[in-house]
Amino acid sequence: MRILEGDQIIMRIFVNEGDKIHGKALYHEIVDVLRNEKAAGATVVRAIAGFGADTKLHTASLLTLSKDLPIIIEVIDTEENISKMRPKVEEIIGDGMITLEKVHVAKYTKKQ
Amino acid sequence: MRILEGDQIIMRIFVNEGDKIHGKALYHEIVDVLRNEKAAGATVVRAIAGFGADTKLHTASLLTLSKDLPIIIEVIDTEENISKMRPKVEEIIGDGMITLEKVHVAKYTKKQ
Amino acid sequence: MRILEGDQIIMRIFVNEGDKIHGKALYHEIVDVLRNEKAAGATVVRAIAGFGADTKLHTASLLTLSKDLPIIIEVIDTEENISKMRPKVEEIIGDGMITLEKVHVAKYTKKQ
Repeated sequence: MRILEGDQIIMRIFVNEGDKIHGKALYHEIVDVLRNEKAAGATVVRAIAGFGADTKLHTASLLTLSKDLPIIIEVIDTEENISKMRPKVEEIIGDGMITLEKVHVAKYTKKQ
Repeated sequence: MRILEGDQIIMRIFVNEGDKIHGKALYHEIVDVLRNEKAAGATVVRAIAGFGADTKLHTASLLTLSKDLPIIIEVIDTEENISKMRPKVEEIIGDGMITLEKVHVAKYTKKQ
Repeated sequence: MRILEGDQIIMRIFVNEGDKIHGKALYHEIVDVLRNEKAAGATVVRAIAGFGADTKLHTASLLTLSKDLPIIIEVIDTEENISKMRPKVEEIIGDGMITLEKVHVAKYTKKQ
């Protein structure tokens, strides 16, 4: 069982839902990269609105079901593992943003 | 009125939507525990995909409406209160992850 | 092109989806204020449940489609810019909460 408790890093990756790479949703590709790299875990959240450096507003409504909403992929892992994963993500994200924050993992349990 | 402004703690609890305790959704039970403990506030976000230590991917689509998506429960409170609440949450979460981060509460107002 | 890489601040603003200002959704107004202030970017996430200082629980289900769910607006920018934006947001949010956290922006790219 992997131990993750202690002081670790949160890497957050911001892309748009409509971003593609080789005809595949970019955020799916990022999740696949993170799994291949054996990230301790990842969580993908879809925003309901947002704007980036271009100040173009992306919004969702029940009627439009916009496909270009912001997507936030969050990974919590050791500093060492994040350092290994980050260049592989940077290589593919194009316009996205990557942020790093300190986090203390108080409990991390895995189904046996 | 409760004062929360200043340097506080964010506790984030990661579980799956399908996790149950005594036949009840685990994340509902956690929210109830936090309310009983008089947490300053809590916010529950449902992710659209994610994987944990088991690397099994959980995803949602409009068609499948998966019931095992990651759920993130976030509580912001004083270090003292978080320390009191944490063991009560740890007791019930089983497989989940708990993280702690520092946060500065710049404004916290309550309806009178 | 704007440079954002380095140590910056995340400001998070917590309001309710049903909050109004001058007949307009408060969170829309906040996003407009942030765009007028030329924030580097903002992301708006809708929670599925939450409670605040009043301990009243807000929840969503497919059947009820509650309109008073918590909304989290997150802005990442320089300390200087956040300091300029914060009072303009505080002025309009009424009951909301504002938090500040440190973040390291590892990559920020803008479409040319």
